[in-house]
Amino acid sequence: MIQQNRITLFDLSGVDDELRISPFCWRIKMALAHKRLDYEAVPWRLVEKERIAASNLSTAPVIVDGGVVVGDSWRIAEYLDSAYPSRPLFVSEQAKAYCRWIHFWTERILHPLIVPLILEDVLKAIHPADFEYFRRTRERAYGRPLADVCDRSAVAYEKLFAATSFVRSLLRETKFVSGESPSYGDYVLFGAYQWARCCSEVRIFRDDKDPTTIWFTRMLGLYDDLGSRAVRLTMLPTRAP
Amino acid sequence: MIQQNRITLFDLSGVDDELRISPFCWRIKMALAHKRLDYEAVPWRLVEKERIAASNLSTAPVIVDGGVVVGDSWRIAEYLDSAYPSRPLFVSEQAKAYCRWIHFWTERILHPLIVPLILEDVLKAIHPADFEYFRRTRERAYGRPLADVCDRSAVAYEKLFAATSFVRSLLRETKFVSGESPSYGDYVLFGAYQWARCCSEVRIFRDDKDPTTIWFTRMLGLYDDLGSRAVRLTMLPTRAP
Repeated sequence: MIQQNRITLFDLSGVDDELRISPFCWRIKMALAHKRLDYEAVPWRLVEKERIAASNLSTAPVIVDGGVVVGDSWRIAEYLDSAYPSRPLFVSEQAKAYCRWIHFWTERILHPLIVPLILEDVLKAIHPADFEYFRRTRERAYGRPLADVCDRSAVAYEKLFAATSFVRSLLRETKFVSGESPSYGDYVLFGAYQWARCCSEVRIFRDDKDPTTIWFTRMLGLYDDLGSRAVRLTMLPTRAP
Repeated sequence: MIQQNRITLFDLSGVDDELRISPFCWRIKMALAHKRLDYEAVPWRLVEKERIAASNLSTAPVIVDGGVVVGDSWRIAEYLDSAYPSRPLFVSEQAKAYCRWIHFWTERILHPLIVPLILEDVLKAIHPADFEYFRRTRERAYGRPLADVCDRSAVAYEKLFAATSFVRSLLRETKFVSGESPSYGDYVLFGAYQWARCCSEVRIFRDDKDPTTIWFTRMLGLYDDLGSRAVRLTMLPTRAP
């Protein structure tokens, strides 16, 4: 910790500054806590492009560490291990390669299955200043109006539960995705579920005996309850319609 | 290699002794080759339970290494690293934990998406002595007649390609699943595609530019063309109907 700069993380915030709603930023908050690095997660909005311009990216997470600016969650994780070798996120190149598999599965398979379930709530969680930008960019990505993407049917739940059945098998036999102790593979998966938890009350696990539920509860308690203490949309006073 | 026993692998064979049709056994042949261990893959049929009785398992792969008998592909991989530490399959506990994710995804998600496409050919590849056992156990597992499981519709292909899209993304940026050099994560994935290749002519990749195709071709050439040299059903003389 000696001579470590305080790292600034631009952390996507919602209707309330303390509501932090990016699965990608949650990965990095967990990674920074894992490495016991001193950091401040400052609220950032989607439209505030100029604040992260030095990253050459248009979205969070972006970190500023002294004179170094790094964006993109995976590159930030790599940077942290490179700049601060102790308490590594990846203990071997092979582990990093396999973790990339988890990364891609989470972004390409898991996130798109969570979106229909929570999108209605995400639209309430998003900051009013970001709403129009969010709607426009996401409708372009999805190729249809957001209202058509929202889906809380039994079929939507079953698709999520079917796609994650193998994760339940895995978590039935291991404490963490990364083995005996948590690491970046856990933080990637955690980001997805914590995103849902912060934005929505939707039932994202099958039931309380679901091994993913048990794992997630364990994850919420890590690093002085970092995940558990997070502000949720449901905790905020209801706004006038 | 000095003082290493020649390891015997019971390797599921089909209508021809040289036709080897188990995705799980292919993992182990690649793992044995990876570790440069001397082994013999002897043909074994599903009904020959007494030959592998010492493993307390009912199916291949099973290895016999001197006085040690080990079954189950994952346990065999662990055993090999433990008994023969050089050229490890898993270079760290974290890598092993993440590889277990790939293992579960392959068995629970990928295999069931390949089955409908190749099952018609698998029924031709299976040894006549195993046919009835295969039909009965698989129909119990699938809960319906095998004829109803067979499906080469465009929808079945699209399901496979959609579920594996993230693997294409991964393989677009890396030479092997395991990073710069192949290891057990590659062998698990390879087993699934090699199973399809040995049993069937079905198009299992999107096209020749599919990063999975390029990776698979690379895998086929490893260890003196171990995968490439494998006998395929389509190479066998057509039997009378």
